[in-house]
Amino acid sequence: MGDAQTAVALFGAAGYTGLELVKLLARHPGVRLACAASDGHAGKLVGELASGPDGLRFVTADEARRIAAGCSVALLAVPPEPAKALALALREAGVRVIDLSHAHRATAGAVYGLASLFAGEVAGAQLVANPGCYATAVITAAAPLVRHGLVGGELFVSAGSGVTGAGRTADEAMSLGEMYGEVRAYKVLRHQHVPEIELALGRVGAGVRVVLTTHLLPVARGIFATLTARLARPASSAELVARFREDYAGDPTVSIAETPEEVSLRRVVGTNACRIGVASDERGIVVVTAALDNLLKGAAGQAVENLNLMLGYPRMAGLEHLARHA
Amino acid sequence: MGDAQTAVALFGAAGYTGLELVKLLARHPGVRLACAASDGHAGKLVGELASGPDGLRFVTADEARRIAAGCSVALLAVPPEPAKALALALREAGVRVIDLSHAHRATAGAVYGLASLFAGEVAGAQLVANPGCYATAVITAAAPLVRHGLVGGELFVSAGSGVTGAGRTADEAMSLGEMYGEVRAYKVLRHQHVPEIELALGRVGAGVRVVLTTHLLPVARGIFATLTARLARPASSAELVARFREDYAGDPTVSIAETPEEVSLRRVVGTNACRIGVASDERGIVVVTAALDNLLKGAAGQAVENLNLMLGYPRMAGLEHLARHA
Amino acid sequence: MGDAQTAVALFGAAGYTGLELVKLLARHPGVRLACAASDGHAGKLVGELASGPDGLRFVTADEARRIAAGCSVALLAVPPEPAKALALALREAGVRVIDLSHAHRATAGAVYGLASLFAGEVAGAQLVANPGCYATAVITAAAPLVRHGLVGGELFVSAGSGVTGAGRTADEAMSLGEMYGEVRAYKVLRHQHVPEIELALGRVGAGVRVVLTTHLLPVARGIFATLTARLARPASSAELVARFREDYAGDPTVSIAETPEEVSLRRVVGTNACRIGVASDERGIVVVTAALDNLLKGAAGQAVENLNLMLGYPRMAGLEHLARHA
Amino acid sequence: MGDAQTAVALFGAAGYTGLELVKLLARHPGVRLACAASDGHAGKLVGELASGPDGLRFVTADEARRIAAGCSVALLAVPPEPAKALALALREAGVRVIDLSHAHRATAGAVYGLASLFAGEVAGAQLVANPGCYATAVITAAAPLVRHGLVGGELFVSAGSGVTGAGRTADEAMSLGEMYGEVRAYKVLRHQHVPEIELALGRVGAGVRVVLTTHLLPVARGIFATLTARLARPASSAELVARFREDYAGDPTVSIAETPEEVSLRRVVGTNACRIGVASDERGIVVVTAALDNLLKGAAGQAVENLNLMLGYPRMAGLEHLARHA
Repeated sequence: MGDAQTAVALFGAAGYTGLELVKLLARHPGVRLACAASDGHAGKLVGELASGPDGLRFVTADEARRIAAGCSVALLAVPPEPAKALALALREAGVRVIDLSHAHRATAGAVYGLASLFAGEVAGAQLVANPGCYATAVITAAAPLVRHGLVGGELFVSAGSGVTGAGRTADEAMSLGEMYGEVRAYKVLRHQHVPEIELALGRVGAGVRVVLTTHLLPVARGIFATLTARLARPASSAELVARFREDYAGDPTVSIAETPEEVSLRRVVGTNACRIGVASDERGIVVVTAALDNLLKGAAGQAVENLNLMLGYPRMAGLEHLARHA
Repeated sequence: MGDAQTAVALFGAAGYTGLELVKLLARHPGVRLACAASDGHAGKLVGELASGPDGLRFVTADEARRIAAGCSVALLAVPPEPAKALALALREAGVRVIDLSHAHRATAGAVYGLASLFAGEVAGAQLVANPGCYATAVITAAAPLVRHGLVGGELFVSAGSGVTGAGRTADEAMSLGEMYGEVRAYKVLRHQHVPEIELALGRVGAGVRVVLTTHLLPVARGIFATLTARLARPASSAELVARFREDYAGDPTVSIAETPEEVSLRRVVGTNACRIGVASDERGIVVVTAALDNLLKGAAGQAVENLNLMLGYPRMAGLEHLARHA
Repeated sequence: MGDAQTAVALFGAAGYTGLELVKLLARHPGVRLACAASDGHAGKLVGELASGPDGLRFVTADEARRIAAGCSVALLAVPPEPAKALALALREAGVRVIDLSHAHRATAGAVYGLASLFAGEVAGAQLVANPGCYATAVITAAAPLVRHGLVGGELFVSAGSGVTGAGRTADEAMSLGEMYGEVRAYKVLRHQHVPEIELALGRVGAGVRVVLTTHLLPVARGIFATLTARLARPASSAELVARFREDYAGDPTVSIAETPEEVSLRRVVGTNACRIGVASDERGIVVVTAALDNLLKGAAGQAVENLNLMLGYPRMAGLEHLARHA
Repeated sequence: MGDAQTAVALFGAAGYTGLELVKLLARHPGVRLACAASDGHAGKLVGELASGPDGLRFVTADEARRIAAGCSVALLAVPPEPAKALALALREAGVRVIDLSHAHRATAGAVYGLASLFAGEVAGAQLVANPGCYATAVITAAAPLVRHGLVGGELFVSAGSGVTGAGRTADEAMSLGEMYGEVRAYKVLRHQHVPEIELALGRVGAGVRVVLTTHLLPVARGIFATLTARLARPASSAELVARFREDYAGDPTVSIAETPEEVSLRRVVGTNACRIGVASDERGIVVVTAALDNLLKGAAGQAVENLNLMLGYPRMAGLEHLARHA
């Protein structure tokens, strides 16, 4: 990795994802966090909000743009509109960009940074669109089925997220008073993540139609997804587990459980893992469950994987201290 | 309702469902709780565990069988095996029985007590099989689709339950330490409730195949179910909402929301309501969400509905004090 | 109670406490909710937010003032500043007022509505200051100790509240993401409730100094308070339990447990009860625990008690449907 | 630290504390986990329950005793009775022992391993009694007050713990169904931890009497303690903060907040930190709040600190990957 650390700029540093990035980059052996931008917290010590580099203070986005011009890579943990503008300016300045918003996820100019599937493209990318948390869970869980032509008909996905998935904002609907004991569906049939998922799966195998229903769960962190479909051809649970294990052999972030029941949300929170279980029955139905931490594997952790791929570092550099499971 | 109260016997009175029945029957204007059986708590005042009738003490199951012989109806909130034996003995003694276990749910000799659909049969029944909590949610949510021939292909259901659904037992897996922030699937493709659901729906319309994945959620109470299917023919969201509202017009326990997103688990907990939302999209997909309190509408509350139907009382007698929503 | 129902006006109807009042008043046999004011929800059906009277819609505060002029009593569930102005105007119009804010809790012109202690004064009051939730728990728990001269030195109180105690607002700090697994102290040594508590206890016995530390707990509802003090003279646990039971004999809202450990927050939520336990040791220390639902006994429920006292209704009219315990 | 790793044996490896030790020791640069004993899980891969050393399997306690005889140190995460027997046998075999149970906390033959206060004695100890989680929080929070003679009268402590503090057992009372929304006090005035706390504080300054009330909180992990006392002499908040900071200057595990309100349970969970805040008022009252992770700083983390002190490693060896705060 050499002695010199690569300078990295971070925008949107005080959101939930931004703070996770601060913590991860502070421990990364090959990276130096050159600036952490947050207009709302500019001037404040980063260490007041997260275990970041000693003495580093938040700067304004304007100041961060000047600093970023001298960096190798910039990470954007900001909403889509500012992300578009920042990406344009930074790319013009020759800075490589990882955008964690959904601004570039369906655009031709960006590489889709699902690290387990498209590592090769990410390595040479100038602009990486970091996948969303639902998309990471669903694509990772569905890819082996799609690759081996196993999905007959639609892929029905029911998935739930902890409230940090909605970002760090003042919203009465997200208050503990409103969310205690609550479960509800949101964006039903409004498909925000579906095009991204269908596009990525279409590169793995024959096109599949995805029906995704997302839910808000009364937990702070994590995504749990349950995929169900009719099998295109008979495949036993054992065969499916074997296929999934082969497909993800050597992947440091994906592990395949013996059964769908073994996948536990609690045990992936705090890790960069995506845990997956698969089974089928005699009626030709397949069920896949998948769980990951929405702020790590579903956002900041995968962004660091992509950063490593871009810089030629080992994929798990800076991530190894995370628990493999709780 | 007359002055004389009908004597009712309760077995399994100290479990989660049993205690809900104690509380409901204590307020019921037409019913007198003649005995509350619990071998583990025999001798103890019922009022120590729940707001029951003053002075009533738990009795052993043996003692309760003697008392029950003089009752009109017995409610069984015990596991399936003792429920079978009790039902046999009580029926021989001429006592009508409501069995809340799954012992009689698929048997010819019992009426399936899904009160919103089969009220007529329940009225004259000697033995009522009270539906399970998942089954109540799924059947109530799916019945209009099935009745109007709208389901094309399988009905995919993803549903979650609070931990009281597993009963009141010492189980490390249900401890708050294990369940905090947890979500996991269980009994995947093992279909315990599926035959019950398919059987009931088969009486409403043409047979439909149900794929049910159940999950444990980190809440105490409630069932939330999300049903997804391909529509057999085009139907707009507005049309679906209208159909559902017509089908449940006048039902005091079912309410149809404007959209699937409006269905809130928290707002049905503590009520005897089943709240349902439905929508479709231009790709021909229909999504139905449903929520209910697993111990009330999913167990004790519906048992009281059935009791009322059997005794000729208004269906909501003894249930009106429950909040319509939180 | 007669046939004619007493007209009551409610201001601040869409907050957590306001909605509880809507639900309670809707079931009250002697009261008719003449208007429910909420500028933010004016025009909307009350029934969309809570089980209120059929067809009633929220009105603006201005409109409610006109309607209230024809009512016997107005309930103010608004912040202190508007409460002061409203109380002044309504009193001039001859309307009796129950103010649930802290605006009038330490003023000479108002009766302090701790219903278990000062029922006699409330009956004839024109303006009742409804006690705060912490104050209700602490005063009720401490009164027997103070009355019998048992407190030697300060009364140290550590108490925690669910997040609905902070009202229904958009506040990032109250989001489930921030509050999950969280406990923290607030307003330490800043005594907002202490004068109110010391004043009320000073009317029960010799003055006592109260040290109160309040905490935010990761639950939606409830207050749990632990009081500790040096005993002024020896008193066994049995003696203390007996004293507390004598003092609260006949009170329909206070129950004394066998021990402090028996007091359970979960079992008072949803009730209008204050549950109390007391014990002492051989070193001369006394510990009292108390629990109540902050929105019911700690706010809306006690307001209805006060309303009943003012109108000559039974103290629990409109409250009897609430569970005695969960 | 040299190349050779020190062999360490672990008993009670499959409990909550044991699994935390497995994870910490697996990453410790100077230590090799020679055996992980659990009769219940013997033969099973440790990695199925926690991120432990690859390939290590649980062994029976008998087998572990044989292996431990060749180790430098044994860690006992078992109940007090087996801990006594194991400590006796292992000490005879010349193995140094860290006992995490309370068996040796008040015995003359053991060094009390409150690492922040008694590091010097721990270094040379043959038998270390690792403090309990409540004791660690209370002693650390109270020590500066006691050292500087600031406590006038009793020290009143109200503290709460997450349910993992009760260990990993099947107990209906700890089920999420019973604990959801629950708070209750336990062991009131039964002082189990008080002698341990008073003994340790008596070595820091003049004896102080501690009144401790412990509570069960509806969270998985963490201890939050609130200490209140009359000051023996006037001391401003600023003075107290300064004293606390001086006393803990250089301590890698204790940090002093600006105010008691800043102490957040959520932010210490997952860390080896004890976070403390202190303030006083003009009435001469002092309040100290303290928070720590009951399984880390309150158990396994402090045990590793003690292990490091005994072996001459840096105190934070093997603990540095833990977040400083969340």
